[in-house]
Amino acid sequence: MKTINTIARMSTLAKMLRKEGKTVGFVPTMGYLHDGHISLVKAARKHTDVVVISVFVNPAQFGPKEDLEKYPRDPKRDETMSAQAGVDIMFCPTAKEMYPDGYSTYVAVEGVSQVMCGASRPSHFRGVTTVVAKLFGIVKPDIAYFGQKDAQQAIIIKKMASDLDMDIEIKVMPTVRERDGLAMSSRNTYLSEAERRDAVVLNQALKRAESLVSAGEKKAAVIKEEIRKMIAETATAKIDYIALVDPQDLKELETIGKEALIALAVFFGRTRLIDNTIVHPRTFVEGNTCKGAGVKV
Amino acid sequence: MKTINTIARMSTLAKMLRKEGKTVGFVPTMGYLHDGHISLVKAARKHTDVVVISVFVNPAQFGPKEDLEKYPRDPKRDETMSAQAGVDIMFCPTAKEMYPDGYSTYVAVEGVSQVMCGASRPSHFRGVTTVVAKLFGIVKPDIAYFGQKDAQQAIIIKKMASDLDMDIEIKVMPTVRERDGLAMSSRNTYLSEAERRDAVVLNQALKRAESLVSAGEKKAAVIKEEIRKMIAETATAKIDYIALVDPQDLKELETIGKEALIALAVFFGRTRLIDNTIVHPRTFVEGNTCKGAGVKV
Repeated sequence: MKTINTIARMSTLAKMLRKEGKTVGFVPTMGYLHDGHISLVKAARKHTDVVVISVFVNPAQFGPKEDLEKYPRDPKRDETMSAQAGVDIMFCPTAKEMYPDGYSTYVAVEGVSQVMCGASRPSHFRGVTTVVAKLFGIVKPDIAYFGQKDAQQAIIIKKMASDLDMDIEIKVMPTVRERDGLAMSSRNTYLSEAERRDAVVLNQALKRAESLVSAGEKKAAVIKEEIRKMIAETATAKIDYIALVDPQDLKELETIGKEALIALAVFFGRTRLIDNTIVHPRTFVEGNTCKGAGVKV
Repeated sequence: MKTINTIARMSTLAKMLRKEGKTVGFVPTMGYLHDGHISLVKAARKHTDVVVISVFVNPAQFGPKEDLEKYPRDPKRDETMSAQAGVDIMFCPTAKEMYPDGYSTYVAVEGVSQVMCGASRPSHFRGVTTVVAKLFGIVKPDIAYFGQKDAQQAIIIKKMASDLDMDIEIKVMPTVRERDGLAMSSRNTYLSEAERRDAVVLNQALKRAESLVSAGEKKAAVIKEEIRKMIAETATAKIDYIALVDPQDLKELETIGKEALIALAVFFGRTRLIDNTIVHPRTFVEGNTCKGAGVKV
């Protein structure tokens, strides 16, 4: 595995790979890798000739009072894990080169960036889309991989790539979870023992929501109230938002039709975690008809 | 010459050219071509294997009260002129495909987009950078060509390409002028006979400014006042702005140091025209020393 630290070297190498007709799979990360990231690398390894991972803690996506400084970093471990997972090129640019003095260009996706995490973290997604657009320019991938754990981010990146005709396929891979169901996240390392125990409620509440939907519940208010109650029962949790939205445009739904994204953001102590699931009412099939005999709608 | 009307076909063709190792030169235009555009095509013809011109009147760069509807169009003539000038591919997408329902991604360059034409035409440059980013994604050029007539636009596009690591060289070619000095512009067609006569004052005032600078004048206020007086003497002109700025960051200068961009925007009747020149005080050479014997500073 080759490690590259400058934009010029990465960009030149990417152009060479393109000339050689190699397809490039790209996994952008902020490092402190876990099995969620590795699942993206493995998918890229399957689909493309050359796998590039970037490790860059992007200042532009942190708010002034957020955890930029204390965000966990372990470059050595990232390097070992990446090499073992089959990464060909690890790209680790510096913040100074990515955002030199006088940097002033931003890519913003309106609408879908302004709700949910975008409402709680203003300018967060503008930072994400800007750095991803930059990384796409440098790495020039054919396919880029993102995790379903950051559902809103994945939707926004897809929208950006499509709106700006970037000609890059965006693949979204399933959330990877710990044994007890907690979604893997570099931020889990912040949790105290008690918070770590409580954090399982995110996945449990989503599972409960799935059961309700499977049992025929379609009212967003009922489902959200059930989630709220479950989370409220833990000692350390403080809800940021519970959203039940259309997975295409992230507009709030009152009733689940074809499908819905249920997304949560909850503080455990000072650590903000997110998780989500997509639910499909059991009676719904394409074309808005009802399947099966004896199913009452 | 091949004419292409869909994003998918252009994008596929661009990818094929890239695979074949061909270099692509790109001239983005809003059509109604004149010799200014053709000079860009000829430069591209010299530098690159394949020359692509786009003709697209971009709704995103017009304000609500501006001339989108009446902007001059003549696709047949554009096609003939392009073919004669040596264009290989003419790309003419529809507004509906470029901005489908729900379109919501914008590229914005802060700072340099907010002064001069950006102050007079809010959101204009956001429309320009967005459409150029899209066209770059579709056409995938190695070099893109812009005219010095739109000096601020050229500076903003360069900044965008550099900030977003687009790996596309931006070449800015000299303004092409009518015999009497008026900068070529598709909008000149709007002018009445009297306005057309008066419009020459733009170039004349810039030439006068150049003479003043050559004669040793360095005070922006003096130069701008001279320009203002000359324009005020014409019957149909109404000044939008007279700017004397640093050509790198477009910050207003009080005194000309190394170099300065003098830029004008003036209404002749209802038609807003722009023009500019870059001046270098005769005593200035790199390193901020003074050249020549006997030159007093």
